[in-house]
Amino acid sequence: MKPDGLLMIPGPVKLHERIINAMAKQMIGHRSKDFEEVFEYCINAIKPLFGTHGDVAIISGSGTAGMEAAIASFSKVRRITCIDNGKFGERFAKIARRYTEVDHLRFEWGESVDLERVEQSLANGSEAVAFVHNETSTGILNPAEEISRIAKKYDALVIMDGITSVGGDEVRMDDWGVDVAVVGSQKCLGAPPGLAAVAVNDRAWDFYNENVPFYLDLKAYVKKAKDNQTPYTPAVPLFLALAEALRIIEEEGLENRIARHRKLANATRKWAEEAGLELFPKLNEHSRYSNTVTAIRMPEGVSDKELRGTLREEYGITISGGQEHLKGKIFRIGHMGNVNKRDLLATLAAVEEILLRKGAVKPAIHAAMEALR
Amino acid sequence: MKPDGLLMIPGPVKLHERIINAMAKQMIGHRSKDFEEVFEYCINAIKPLFGTHGDVAIISGSGTAGMEAAIASFSKVRRITCIDNGKFGERFAKIARRYTEVDHLRFEWGESVDLERVEQSLANGSEAVAFVHNETSTGILNPAEEISRIAKKYDALVIMDGITSVGGDEVRMDDWGVDVAVVGSQKCLGAPPGLAAVAVNDRAWDFYNENVPFYLDLKAYVKKAKDNQTPYTPAVPLFLALAEALRIIEEEGLENRIARHRKLANATRKWAEEAGLELFPKLNEHSRYSNTVTAIRMPEGVSDKELRGTLREEYGITISGGQEHLKGKIFRIGHMGNVNKRDLLATLAAVEEILLRKGAVKPAIHAAMEALR
Repeated sequence: MKPDGLLMIPGPVKLHERIINAMAKQMIGHRSKDFEEVFEYCINAIKPLFGTHGDVAIISGSGTAGMEAAIASFSKVRRITCIDNGKFGERFAKIARRYTEVDHLRFEWGESVDLERVEQSLANGSEAVAFVHNETSTGILNPAEEISRIAKKYDALVIMDGITSVGGDEVRMDDWGVDVAVVGSQKCLGAPPGLAAVAVNDRAWDFYNENVPFYLDLKAYVKKAKDNQTPYTPAVPLFLALAEALRIIEEEGLENRIARHRKLANATRKWAEEAGLELFPKLNEHSRYSNTVTAIRMPEGVSDKELRGTLREEYGITISGGQEHLKGKIFRIGHMGNVNKRDLLATLAAVEEILLRKGAVKPAIHAAMEALR
Repeated sequence: MKPDGLLMIPGPVKLHERIINAMAKQMIGHRSKDFEEVFEYCINAIKPLFGTHGDVAIISGSGTAGMEAAIASFSKVRRITCIDNGKFGERFAKIARRYTEVDHLRFEWGESVDLERVEQSLANGSEAVAFVHNETSTGILNPAEEISRIAKKYDALVIMDGITSVGGDEVRMDDWGVDVAVVGSQKCLGAPPGLAAVAVNDRAWDFYNENVPFYLDLKAYVKKAKDNQTPYTPAVPLFLALAEALRIIEEEGLENRIARHRKLANATRKWAEEAGLELFPKLNEHSRYSNTVTAIRMPEGVSDKELRGTLREEYGITISGGQEHLKGKIFRIGHMGNVNKRDLLATLAAVEEILLRKGAVKPAIHAAMEALR
């Protein structure tokens, strides 16, 4: 018998059964009072996760749609600095290039951001900065607060991809001075993929460019949100799922949720260390390991297929490989959303068992068990 | 006891329980073989509904995202003619204005398109034409074949909003010479809202504009579709639902499905006629009544709230009102997707019962029953 599936990737995440059930409903009209109540709940419940009192738009589309809506809607800038130390930072640069001049600050994927280069770029006349808070392609947490502080010295707009941090790690938009931030439904929120929320502070509107794509025009979303509606037909089942996911977050409590993510991440790192595996990111004094995904170097002599293929085949567990030029060089374990100790231990034990067969690690699962106590 | 809900609007439509159940699944990886199979099935099963052998892109987003992807991706034109005889035609013009010069051909909402004006606009140098096939805001079916024929005389690109015709009425893109067409998941396909499919013929690529928004760049979707993948994380549950919806269409057979839509539409119109109600659209020799939605003038002395409010309150049935300046002046009954005789008769009888109380109609339900035989 083939085992049923367990997703341990950096999104889409495994769904809690309450969220699956929330979706399995007869359709309701998207202009009905019933939908408006769902929508209003979502907007209000998501703001604390961003750490904002500003507006929130919810787009029916993936996280990339949210990233582009953020860039395009606020592209009235001569130049934008895009920080790239991973695939999603690179994506910001690709998107931004369609709207304005870009200073593309490249770092090796897995390296930390050099804040001096960020400051230099802003001093040279960039009017905005876009960066990824939690870079899932490499498992690094970029220093959002420090980047924002530098940007503010130059009155620059700050756009943050919080797609895989919001709801799973500390995000304090208003305190940090982040003007625009994005989250995806399928990451730390624990809902299925297909929605992106964009939080917007008042200051961002000074940078509003009305030549934004129609579908990604945040002004239209924010305006309609005052009536608890969306400008275009929303993906109704995904809103129902998101509302249930946010209810679960409220019940758990945001602090507890962040603490859980940290504990799971810590256990994963302790396990890797004990097993003799090497974490992929290279930290500096400002960066940290991600608390929502752990990226680990593939041990010598083990192929992606041997590890991830066997894991899926024998255990029904899916973890991620490396993207682009990191294919085969790293593997990534997602521990975000409504993931629990049981799922994580199963994953780490199964990975260890496969790598032990190849003689590529030392026994280490007890280190994770201890860290999870 | 409040009755449970029945949606009889021009989308989102009531879901068949098989489609609800298809969504209620644990999440699968979007880069997994399992997802690729779902995706491949969707692409192949949807092509015959467009009447095309061309490429199909599926975007996680509403129909509007599909409309904009179609316009923006193929906006390398000096001028585009946008035909507007209803809300969605107007939307095409609004979208197109963000990409190129627009000749906005306005007709009164509810009026038929004057093909001579279309020809004139093309003769004056438009290189593309965008129009809505089935205009749900007014219940009219615009003459797609004739518009395409005129456009071809001028080698103009033809972009068609088939959002509420594909899967419910005859659409023959390749035969008619439509180069790009759009459908929404929540209309005649019978799936939940949140996906838009765009069919693209080879010729359209001559008009490709690489300055298209990143998320709406059809080249990226078509390229990834060769590997049965999407460029950005897809709304997985909605793809599962769409696949099941397309399976239901295959089982019914496209011809039978179109015949069913026509029969339901015919019954609705016969009922309205017999009741002494006035259909809203003004036909000419080229236009027809929509087979997927019927728009009817609100009888004198009846308010939107009296009709639609009472219908929802007492019967749990939701129908649509008029949009924009048509608010309160018309009501619209959707009969698209997996709707059946039972749902339609219940709706017509309930509407009739409410209007009879107001002395606003004659008894007419038997006309519908007869037409449905």
